[in-house]
Formats: sequence, C-alpha cells, structure tokens
Amino acid sequence: MVASHLADVLSKLQPLYSDHASVVSMNLFVALLCASIVIGHLLEENRWMNESITALAIGLCTGVIILLTSGGKSSRLLVFSEDLFFIYLLPPIIFNAGFSVKKKQFFRNFITIMLFGAVVAKGQHKGSAWFVDVLLNILEINLVVVIPYLILQTGVIKFFKEMDLGSLDMGDFVAIGAIFAATDSVCTLQVLNQDETPLLYSLVFGEGVVNDATSVVLFNAIQSFDLTNTSPGIALEFIGKFLYLFVASTLLGAAVGLVSAYIIKTLYFGRHSTDREFALMMLMAYLSYIMAELFYLSGILTVFFCGIVMSHYTWHNVTESSRITSKHAFATLSFVAEIFIFLHVGMDALDIETWRFVNDRRGTSIIVSSVLLALVMAGRAAFVFPLSYLTNLANKSPSDKISFRQQVIIWWSGLMRGAVSMALAYNQFTRGGHTQSHLNAIMITSTITVVLFSTVVFGLLTKPLIRFLLPHSKVTTSMLSEQSSPKSITTPFLGSAMDSFDDSPKGVHRPSSIRALLTTPTHTVHYYWRKFDNAVMRPMFGGRGFVPFVPGSPTERSEQNLSQLH
Amino acid sequence: MVASHLADVLSKLQPLYSDHASVVSMNLFVALLCASIVIGHLLEENRWMNESITALAIGLCTGVIILLTSGGKSSRLLVFSEDLFFIYLLPPIIFNAGFSVKKKQFFRNFITIMLFGAVVAKGQHKGSAWFVDVLLNILEINLVVVIPYLILQTGVIKFFKEMDLGSLDMGDFVAIGAIFAATDSVCTLQVLNQDETPLLYSLVFGEGVVNDATSVVLFNAIQSFDLTNTSPGIALEFIGKFLYLFVASTLLGAAVGLVSAYIIKTLYFGRHSTDREFALMMLMAYLSYIMAELFYLSGILTVFFCGIVMSHYTWHNVTESSRITSKHAFATLSFVAEIFIFLHVGMDALDIETWRFVNDRRGTSIIVSSVLLALVMAGRAAFVFPLSYLTNLANKSPSDKISFRQQVIIWWSGLMRGAVSMALAYNQFTRGGHTQSHLNAIMITSTITVVLFSTVVFGLLTKPLIRFLLPHSKVTTSMLSEQSSPKSITTPFLGSAMDSFDDSPKGVHRPSSIRALLTTPTHTVHYYWRKFDNAVMRPMFGGRGFVPFVPGSPTERSEQNLSQLH
Repeated sequence: MVASHLADVLSKLQPLYSDHASVVSMNLFVALLCASIVIGHLLEENRWMNESITALAIGLCTGVIILLTSGGKSSRLLVFSEDLFFIYLLPPIIFNAGFSVKKKQFFRNFITIMLFGAVVAKGQHKGSAWFVDVLLNILEINLVVVIPYLILQTGVIKFFKEMDLGSLDMGDFVAIGAIFAATDSVCTLQVLNQDETPLLYSLVFGEGVVNDATSVVLFNAIQSFDLTNTSPGIALEFIGKFLYLFVASTLLGAAVGLVSAYIIKTLYFGRHSTDREFALMMLMAYLSYIMAELFYLSGILTVFFCGIVMSHYTWHNVTESSRITSKHAFATLSFVAEIFIFLHVGMDALDIETWRFVNDRRGTSIIVSSVLLALVMAGRAAFVFPLSYLTNLANKSPSDKISFRQQVIIWWSGLMRGAVSMALAYNQFTRGGHTQSHLNAIMITSTITVVLFSTVVFGLLTKPLIRFLLPHSKVTTSMLSEQSSPKSITTPFLGSAMDSFDDSPKGVHRPSSIRALLTTPTHTVHYYWRKFDNAVMRPMFGGRGFVPFVPGSPTERSEQNLSQLH
Repeated sequence: MVASHLADVLSKLQPLYSDHASVVSMNLFVALLCASIVIGHLLEENRWMNESITALAIGLCTGVIILLTSGGKSSRLLVFSEDLFFIYLLPPIIFNAGFSVKKKQFFRNFITIMLFGAVVAKGQHKGSAWFVDVLLNILEINLVVVIPYLILQTGVIKFFKEMDLGSLDMGDFVAIGAIFAATDSVCTLQVLNQDETPLLYSLVFGEGVVNDATSVVLFNAIQSFDLTNTSPGIALEFIGKFLYLFVASTLLGAAVGLVSAYIIKTLYFGRHSTDREFALMMLMAYLSYIMAELFYLSGILTVFFCGIVMSHYTWHNVTESSRITSKHAFATLSFVAEIFIFLHVGMDALDIETWRFVNDRRGTSIIVSSVLLALVMAGRAAFVFPLSYLTNLANKSPSDKISFRQQVIIWWSGLMRGAVSMALAYNQFTRGGHTQSHLNAIMITSTITVVLFSTVVFGLLTKPLIRFLLPHSKVTTSMLSEQSSPKSITTPFLGSAMDSFDDSPKGVHRPSSIRALLTTPTHTVHYYWRKFDNAVMRPMFGGRGFVPFVPGSPTERSEQNLSQLH
C-alpha cells in the first residue's frame, strides 16, 4: 500500500491553495492541533467530553468558518489522503498500541475473547506465555472480526439490492464489511479505569487493537482479489491468503523486534548514548513497517507485533533515560497522530464537493447511514453476547465472569467507528480524495455520518453510561497513553499481580494464593515456552532480569523491592 | 522558503523508481541509517573516524554499488531536495541546537567572539544575563560571518572573471559567499571535550550555530533582492533588511517560546500527562518555524531562539519525565536528521547526471574547487587570528586568553563545510535537484567536492591535530548531544560553577572566589535584566526555581543539594 502511494501522498499533501496561502493553512492546522490539546486538557474533568470529541468539534467549527470565509467553496485546509494516513499517522498509533500493551492482560483476554476454538484450554491458557498464546490463537482471533463482518456483509448486499443503488460490485460490498468492522475503542478507554476494572479494560483494549489490525488485513486481502465472480475455490484461496498475511506479518514483526533487541544488547549502547538507542528503536520500528510492504504483507500487524516484542525484550536492554524517552515519545507521537486524524475528519465532514454530489439524493444518504449504523450495532451484538455467554460457561471462578452490565459496555465500546474506517473508505471509494460517482459520494458521506454520529453521540454517552452501569467504579480520567505504558507491566494490579511475575520459573511452582493455584499454567506447551524464553530467548535477546543492573534506575529498583516482598 | 516549496518537496521526495522499487529503496535507506548508527558506535573509539564521516563513507559505498548495479545510470536512492532539507531535516537540528545550548557559556562567548563592538564592556559582560547579551550583541554577531564572506566574495568575483566562466550574475556571486560561509563544526565538537576545554568548546559551538543561522538569513536576504545592478542605496537597503530579519526572527522565536511556557505553566499539564506537555512543546516549536515563514522571516533563527527560550522557561515547567523525554527525543531527532543528511550527501556525490555535464571541463571543476577551498581557509584565517589577538588584548586574566594553539583549532574547526552548504547550493544552482547549465553543474560539483574534501580530510585529521596541539587534554569521545543537554546547565564545570548559579540575586552579591569577584557583573543593564527576569519573567513564565517542586525529580534534587553546598 505504501508502495504505490508514496508518490501520491506527497503530491496530495500539497495544500489546496498555493504559495503563501499554503503556509497560512499549515500554520492554522498546527495552531488548531495545539488548541485541541489545550482545550482537551481543560475539558478533561468534564463528564461528557473527551479528546477525540474535542478535536472533532474544533475541526467542525473550523470547517464552518472556512466554508463561510471562502464563500462556500471549501471546508478543508489540506486534502485528506488515505496515504498520508497510512504512511505517517497510522504506524505510530499502531506501534504504540503494541509497545504499550499490557502483554499478560492482553493475551489472557485474547483467550477470553477467542474461546470458541479454545474453550477446553481456557483454564490452562491463563498465564504469561503470551508468545505461544499468540501463535496458538492467531487463527481464532479472526472470529472477532469475521462474525460482525459476515452479518454486515449479508445485510449490506441485501439492502443495496433492494435500494437498487446499482453499480457497486462484489468487491465494494466485501470492502464495506471490512471498513465498518474496524472499531475505535479509544473513546471508551479514556473513561474506563484500568486499575478498577482490569478485565473490562483489557477486553475492550485488546479487542480494539486486534480488530483494527484484522480489518486492515482483511481489507488488503480483499483489494488484491478479483471478487467479481465468487466460487468456493476463491473463498478458500481468500481464507488461505488471509491466514498467510496474518502469520507472516506477525513473524516478520517479531523478527525485526528481536534483531533490534539483539543489536542493542550486543553492542550495549547504554554505555554511551540514549540518543542512539532511541534512534535505533524508532528506525527499526519504521523499518518493520516498510519491510512488510516490501514482502507484500500487512504493515499494521507487523509493526504491532514489533512493538510487542520491543517492549518485551529491547526496552529492557536500554538505559533508564532511554526507557522513559521511548515510552513517552512513542505515546506522544501516537497521541498527536490521533488528534491530527480527528481534527481532519471534523473538517472533512463538511467537504462541499462530496455533499454536492449527494445533494439531490439526500434521503438515500440518510437511509444508507442509518442502515449501516443499525448493522454495526446488530453485528456487534451478535457476537458480544453469545461469546460472553460461552466465556461465562467456561469460567469457574465468579470473579472472572462477565456480568450483563459489562457485556453492555463491551458491546457499546465497539460501536464507535473512527479514523481507520475513514481511511479505508477514502481508499476504496475515492481517487486522491476526490470522487466523481454518485454512489461513491454516498458511500463517503455515509461513512462520515456513521463516524461522526457514533463518535459524538455514542462517545458523549459513554461516560454517563459507564457511571450508570458501574456505579461503584469512579470514572477517573487518566489518559490511555499514561496508563498503558511499558513501565506499568511491572505494576501489580487487581487479581493479576501473580501473573505479572510468574514469568520466572519460580512463580509456576509456588502459587501463593487460591486464585493463582486455580490459574497455574499446567499446559505443557506454555511451561516449555516459558522455559525456552528463560533459557534461550532472554539470555540472547535481553529482557527483564537478564540485563546488567543500571544504577539509578527507578524501574529496576521497584522491581527489586517487589521481588523482595515475594 | 517553506511556502513556495512545500508542494515541490512532496512531489520530489518521490523516489526515482516507481511502485515496488520505491519501497525497496526506502527499505534500503532506512537500513543504511541503522547501519550508520551501529557502525558509528563501533568506530567511536577509533582515533580517526566520527559519525559524520561514517555516514558519508557508507553513502559513498552505497552510491558506488547502486552505480554498478544500475549500469551507471544513477547513484541515488531518493532525489536530494533542498526543500526536504528545509522542511523536515533542518528544523529539528537547529531547534535542538538552541534547546541544548549552554546558555551561560554560549552568550559569554558571543562576547569573546564579537568583541569588536564591545571591547570595553568585556569584563562586565561576563555573566548570566544572556538575554540582554543577545539583544546587545545581535548587531555584532554578523561580523563573524560577514568578514570571511566579504573575502570570499571578492575572491570569487575576481577569480571567475579571470577564468572567463561567464554567465554567473551578481546574485550568484553573493550567494556563493553565503553558501561557503556556513561552517559545520559538528565534526570538531565530537572530539572536543566540554569539561576539559570549556572555553574552546563554547567558542567553536557558539560560533558554529550562529554562523549557520546567519548564513541562511544572509542567503534569504540575497535571494529576495535584485542584485543585477549594485548601488550604495541597495547595499544600505540590503543591510537594513538583513538586520530586520535578524531582530524580528529572534523576537518571534522568543515570543512563541514564552507563550508555550505560559500555557504549560498556567494549565499545569504535569498534573496529568507527559504526552500532552511534550506534544505541545514539539508542536509549538514547529509552529514557530512555520510562523516565521508566514511573516517572511528566517525560520532557522526563529526556531533557534524558540529553543533557547523553551529550555530557559518551558523546560522547567514540565514534569521530570517530560524533561527527560523532551531532552532526549529532540536530541535524537536532530541526530537522525544529521545522519540522514550525511548519508544523502555521500550518495549524491556520485550523481552521474551532474558529473556528465562537468565531464568535458573536468579541469575547470577541479580548479574552482581548489580556489574555493583556499578562499575558505584564507577567509577564516583572516578573522580568527586578528579577533583572537584583540580578545587577548582585552583580557586581563591569563586563563581566559586564547593561546595560539587554541586559535589554530578554532580556525580549523570552521573549515569544514556540511549539509547547510549543500542545501543552499542546491537551492541556488538547481531546479528540483536537476541542473541543465554547464556552469551550474560546475558549481554543484565544486560544492560537493569542497564538502566531501573538507569533511573527510579535515575531519579525519581533527582528532590527531587536537591531540597534537593539546596533548594534556584526553581526547574523549562523548557525544555532542549527550553533553549539551538542558540538564547539564545545572552541572557546574571548570571555572564557571558560579556562572551557573548567579541567576539568583544572591549569587550576584556573594561572590565566593577571586575568579567570581573578577567576573561579577557590574554592568547595570545586566543587573536590571536579571532583576527583571526574577521579578517579572520567571514568576510569569516559570523557570528554574519558580515552579512547584515535583517529587522524585532527580534534577531538582541535585539542584537542592548544590544550593545547600552554596
């Protein structure tokens, strides 16, 4: 994707005006970014708002002002381009998601989410052997996306045939499914508290990230296929391609991450320069992304798993200041990219060119949007509730059961559609940010409507809803990026303190509580993976406890204190 | 400059090949960046090499390989564009230079360098009132560039007339002067030790940064003037414009820096989010750069002074982790940008298209290069030695005198020409990285030759030369970016421990050593500035000692210890 579009993106980033006017719009855009951050901070304590909605609102207001000052000509500062998105904005967001994920929690909840194929193994899976979990569950992940996707697709095809909208081909229908399968759970995460509701938080977070990545993979797989005529053979081939993309991308990401860990560990960069370590981490992460494009794989998945491996190995090999720097700098880049996207979507929502096309069939556009929104809600309900039911059946301990109220929150948190959906829609239905066909214009405006409506209306209702459903948990407002940092993997939290430390062989044999006893990993594969990690992987690639002690390092110190408490 | 070229740059970043081949070259380029960092690290202990030469050498080797594999068609992965340079690469380098400069040392040596206009005030200037120093000395700074520049220009014009090369107009001649006035002192700084030879280090560093910035301002001023016919009126107008650019850019940079300090101090971002603070610092810094373009000022100077103000006020208002993150992240971005440029220059040196033009007049090109190199050396000698002589005359204490050996090092350190010269040359003599005229091609190849020769030959000889001239100082190899960090302004060093702390009113009245007594600022302007800074500026914008204590902050703690020792 990066391949063919690099040239495009660059010519498209080109502002709408020329020369000095373009400097004005760049200034305005950067100033708006600053304003979004400041206003988002001021409104943080507000019970309705969050940063995404703030940026969207500012974008909308600016769009209106530009529309008025330009005499109804344009509402945009820069042409939104799906390539700008895929080359500059998405990689930092996805990398940071992988880099800051709480591995234990994340992979533990993979299992909860994907239990269809692994109901039996449930009890045993609960542990820290995250890497094997990934490989074992990689096939099962896809269900998370595939079910709502199938429902969406069936619904969309039927509906479009009835509306007699015509000219969308099979590929478009399948693409619509993939576009609206990409959830945006950032809004929900901003109001959920990781320490008070760890299970819920992990479910929503883990699902959100995998969901995004899977949607993109699915979308890529669709685009490279000729779907004008369908046959069972093509379907099989498609599934094969999808699985290949998933496994190969994961392995590539892990490989690049391991190479970075090995280089930094072997040369021991910490001796001299934080800057070199951080530069190398940044460059290697981006390298993994473009290497995926080189091998026609999914850059998103690759960079996500590269982030996970880097936080598991590389991050422990660097100096303390490199750790702080990488943690915050990656989070900041991701944060700025997110604000950028929401601001852009807000401005783009008023794009006059697209709306003009739709003007004469305004009714159709509204109907299409409503139907898509309904399908999104139905599709999500159709997998959240049955899956939760099955999870509860398989769970023996009541504390791990997902209550109905929690199920509603999980369902709700997946209703929002965000930047990824927008980017995929622009990619599918426009050429360079412009569209010439009626139907495509309707699809774009419908996507914008769904994204705006779900983000603003559902987003505004999220805080009150969670407060209503979970009255015992204070709705705190700490930032996502602050919570889900690599550092916090060493922080014990509710009911999973053991999990955080049973990486060491000791933890396996010395369960110190009933809970830990119940969840002690007995599955031999996991046991041997952990043995392997400690015997081969960590000595070779570094990792917690396998690198020389760096003096004055708070993280190391707090770990030592904790292990003394053990 | 950014204005008219944004569109260009983006279409020019476009790789030479299309589609998949462009991904291959992007992969290769990022991999080479990683390789340069790793190899640069391995060769750090080597007595000849430094990071710049490593990147240049790798670039040259890659260029040769590409040349061979492509059958002599091309040696480049991406077209070098002066716009790419001015939009993405230069701002982080210059901002970091301002952000990490040791303000006391830097402005103290401004005086040493610019004593022509301030010989009398010398003794009094030595202090901490850096801001007033700037404003007082801003007019005098220019001499640093103007003298070698005038020599260069006179030499160039005479020489070209004799060679009968023809078609260069007056503007080109003046531009050549500005191009070769931009020194690249990074190489020397990598081998000078700040703690052992603080005076020498500051002289070279301070001069290098101001030199770069002044060259660019000069170059901008030249480009906006019609220099085909010269008259005294135009010369006066030109000087007026140059001064206006300098003062206005400085004030704009300071203003943006103060706004950022005020916003962060007022909202107290530290309460919640390191990411927001760092994002805001990054965005405001870039905003200052593009705002300068908005008002047709010099972005380089603006972002440089924005960096200085940010490190004086803003940096003290944020949390400890924001400080560590911003310090290292800015340094890393600057570091990567530098490596990127050197790698690019190395590859570009073999650009076959340009050399083909020159092929039939190879002799001319060699002569032009040699003459330029000789003029550079003569021009630098003509201002370093007389200026040092005057400085020594004005200095009473022998420890502050510049010895002849040190003078040689100062002279030598300014001989290297680097990325800024390349970028300016491409800007002046090519259209979009390509040239069609013989003479322009000769100018480009001559610039490349001068840059390569001075960086590699002079660069390789720097370590041995310093070892020979200053045998008592161990040639340590710590990184520039590690040394000149904002944190280190709190580290006392040789003979200037007092300077570091006499910001507080106490320090002024309680000189605790003979040296401090000699250098106690008595100049009333400085005294009142410091009073003003403490009474008005710091309470309003924050700064060291004027923000609430952040628990667990090592910097604050070490400062407290030091003030207890006081």
